[in-house]
Amino acid sequence: MAKRTLETCFSPALYEPENNSDSIVVIIDILRASSAICTAFANGAEAIIPVSEVSEAREYKSRGYLVAAERDGYVLDFADFGNSPFNFTKELVDGKTIVYSTTNGTGILNLASSAYLTIVGSFLNIGAIVNFLAENERSVLLFCAGWKNRFNIEDSVCAGAIAEKLMSTGLYETKCDSTLAAIDLWSIASPDLSGYIEKAAQRSRLRDKKLDDCITFCLTTDFTQKIPVLKNGVLVDNVL
Amino acid sequence: MAKRTLETCFSPALYEPENNSDSIVVIIDILRASSAICTAFANGAEAIIPVSEVSEAREYKSRGYLVAAERDGYVLDFADFGNSPFNFTKELVDGKTIVYSTTNGTGILNLASSAYLTIVGSFLNIGAIVNFLAENERSVLLFCAGWKNRFNIEDSVCAGAIAEKLMSTGLYETKCDSTLAAIDLWSIASPDLSGYIEKAAQRSRLRDKKLDDCITFCLTTDFTQKIPVLKNGVLVDNVL
Repeated sequence: MAKRTLETCFSPALYEPENNSDSIVVIIDILRASSAICTAFANGAEAIIPVSEVSEAREYKSRGYLVAAERDGYVLDFADFGNSPFNFTKELVDGKTIVYSTTNGTGILNLASSAYLTIVGSFLNIGAIVNFLAENERSVLLFCAGWKNRFNIEDSVCAGAIAEKLMSTGLYETKCDSTLAAIDLWSIASPDLSGYIEKAAQRSRLRDKKLDDCITFCLTTDFTQKIPVLKNGVLVDNVL
Repeated sequence: MAKRTLETCFSPALYEPENNSDSIVVIIDILRASSAICTAFANGAEAIIPVSEVSEAREYKSRGYLVAAERDGYVLDFADFGNSPFNFTKELVDGKTIVYSTTNGTGILNLASSAYLTIVGSFLNIGAIVNFLAENERSVLLFCAGWKNRFNIEDSVCAGAIAEKLMSTGLYETKCDSTLAAIDLWSIASPDLSGYIEKAAQRSRLRDKKLDDCITFCLTTDFTQKIPVLKNGVLVDNVL
């Protein structure tokens, strides 16, 4: 049986949708969107509607939806809460459909929507992601959200952690330099992940905005077995 | 005095020309274009005209220029030689203006042409590049050519080697995740650079086309002190 391929994309600007129609694409945006989304499902959320425009989020709010929305670190006045994973508590989200305002994230989900399957990954669900991928005979693309189309360290390291685990199954092959580099970055980061992430630009941005209380949590592995999956533009509970 | 910034761009698709009008941009495409260009100047070439189209190269040939041109590993029938550094011998290039056919490389040079200064870097002239940059009070962008807009290992590692040396001068600061990742990749690669590059996709492509005889040479440091510089679309001898 031919091995499945494993590739990594470091930025939305480098994404090649035409190559992934038969692949499972894993969206990785660990500080903080993909971690928040995994947390929401872990705490019982039924669905997450990603929206790019503040006006859309406001419109959903007026129709009674729970809305997570912030800009530049401030919770928007009409929103229920901001974008931190800590906001998505069981009390607030259990059984609910949540609107999540994220310009970058919505664009990436749209880009990836033509893949065979699009799921959301983070350290919080890394074990579940690896098991799910290994059980499916599909090629995989690890899609790092980056920051304003730039490469970022935290998503690349998470991609490297997933890639290292997938390669060790013996089921995948890769000729993708991005994947090999991500695995190497993970090998440097893994002995002290929290210390390594200190140098990431996003780490500093979150500190400056006093939004960094969730970082240790975002680097926690296997907080949940949930795998958010994109269906018709909406993220729904567990692909399994 | 404010420190100069140091940034790295992993692919032409990620290049932001508007950010670099005051910066020195170093083009890195070590397997093989930037190594070949450095070798040509080391061996006395007067100028290199990069062209993107085969028809342009043919036109220059008909006007008596020396032309380096290949496609898919084959030297084009009208050309004088291919794109390997080994073709640019002193006997052939001393005192000459050479037309170098490279679709990817020409596009990158065009992209970077709005920078304060655009120079060509490789391991072959790494010491000269670092000294030149350190002596100039300018911010620096290390621009990796990549492959078909994708991240590649060999250019990233070379960028990491340059970045590590620049950061150790204490003259630069960086908040650029790409630079920090490149430095980490260089730290893994540097004990056995040739062994590390074995896994690069371009290493395999060159081997498959039997064009890999020059790789050990391309990984050699300080073969020359020449720094090719872009002036009006043409690369000329030494910036100094």
